[in-house]
Amino acid sequence: MTQVSIIGTGNMANAIGGVFADGGSSVSYIPKANTGAAPLEGEIVVLAVPYPAVDSIIAAYGDQLDGKIIVDITNPLNFETFDSLPVPAGSSAAAEIQSRLPGARVLKAFNTTFAGTLVSKKIGDAATTVLIAGDDAAAKELLANAVKAGGVSAIDAGSLSRAHELEALGFLQLTLAAAEKFSWTGGFAVTL
Amino acid sequence: MTQVSIIGTGNMANAIGGVFADGGSSVSYIPKANTGAAPLEGEIVVLAVPYPAVDSIIAAYGDQLDGKIIVDITNPLNFETFDSLPVPAGSSAAAEIQSRLPGARVLKAFNTTFAGTLVSKKIGDAATTVLIAGDDAAAKELLANAVKAGGVSAIDAGSLSRAHELEALGFLQLTLAAAEKFSWTGGFAVTL
Repeated sequence: MTQVSIIGTGNMANAIGGVFADGGSSVSYIPKANTGAAPLEGEIVVLAVPYPAVDSIIAAYGDQLDGKIIVDITNPLNFETFDSLPVPAGSSAAAEIQSRLPGARVLKAFNTTFAGTLVSKKIGDAATTVLIAGDDAAAKELLANAVKAGGVSAIDAGSLSRAHELEALGFLQLTLAAAEKFSWTGGFAVTL
Repeated sequence: MTQVSIIGTGNMANAIGGVFADGGSSVSYIPKANTGAAPLEGEIVVLAVPYPAVDSIIAAYGDQLDGKIIVDITNPLNFETFDSLPVPAGSSAAAEIQSRLPGARVLKAFNTTFAGTLVSKKIGDAATTVLIAGDDAAAKELLANAVKAGGVSAIDAGSLSRAHELEALGFLQLTLAAAEKFSWTGGFAVTL
C-alpha cells in the first residue's frame, strides 16, 4: 500500500487525497500550521500549498525530505499581474524546489488538473489525466500507479525540465478559466 | 469575404486552408519557392512553414507585410535535441517575428492543433479549438470569425506574450505524440 502525506488542506489537497484514497493509498493530511511538527508518513509527500509557502515547508522539514518523492503541484502565478510566473525564465518551480532539495526526488504533477476534474475524474467526456514530469523513473511510476488505482489517468510527460511546459500549460489554463473562456470543470483534456 | 494568403503547401497549410475555404474565405497558396514573387492577397497571411524558413519570407516580402495580419503557426522545436525551443527563454517565435515586423499585426495560432484535428474538426468527442494570442483585438476577431465560419472553434488566448505559453503547449503536445502517449489525431482538447 502506498502511503502519502499531503501538506495543505485546501481544495486541491482534498481532491488529490481523494484520488489516492479511492485507489487504496493511505493518506495523512498535514495542515500548514503543523508543518515541521507533524511526521511525514510514507514515501510520497505532496506540497499542496501555494508556491510562496514552499520555502517555509522546506525549512521546517529539512533533511527529513531526503529520499522522499516530493510532488510539486504549484502554478507559481504572479497573482498581482496575472501575466507572468515568478520563477526564472525557462526554469520552473519544480526545478527550483529540486535545486533546494538535492536529496529528494521532485516530481511535477497535478498542476494542470483543476480540483473539480480530480473529484469527478472526468473532463467533458474524457478521463481526467495527471501529467507527471520528473527525472526519477521509479518515482514517476509509483505516483502514476497510485493515481491510476484511484480511477484517474496518468501520463509520464518526460524529464523534470518539462515542468517548464507543464507550468506554462497550467498558467494558460488558469488565465483562460479566469477569463471565462471555459469553466473550472473544463480546460485542456488529454485525448488519446 | 475574408481573403487569406497561405505561404507553404504542407499538411498544416492544407489543413488550415481547408478550414478557411469551408468558411467561405478565399484562399491563395504560395509555395515557399515562389516567396517574394507571388502577390500577398488579402489581409491575412499565414506563415505555414517551419520556423527556420520565416526569416527568408520576411526578407523576401519586406514592407509588403506592413499592415497585414501575420499568423505564425510555428512550433520552433529544436528537432535535433527534441528537448528545447530555439528562441530566447521566456520569449516566443511570435514575439521574435513581431519585433522584426513592427508594421504588421502578428498573431500566434494553429500551433496547438495537429493537422488531422483541423481536417476532422474534432478531437475525440470535442470540437477542435484554435487558440489565438496577439495584441491586436480586431485582428484576433477577424481570424477567429474566419475560423469559426469554417466549423472550428476559436478562443482568444490573450496578448502576444501568451504566445510563450502556446508554444510551450505545442511543444509538450509534440513530444507526447512523438512518445506515443497519444495519437496525432489526439492531444489537448479544449473542454468548456
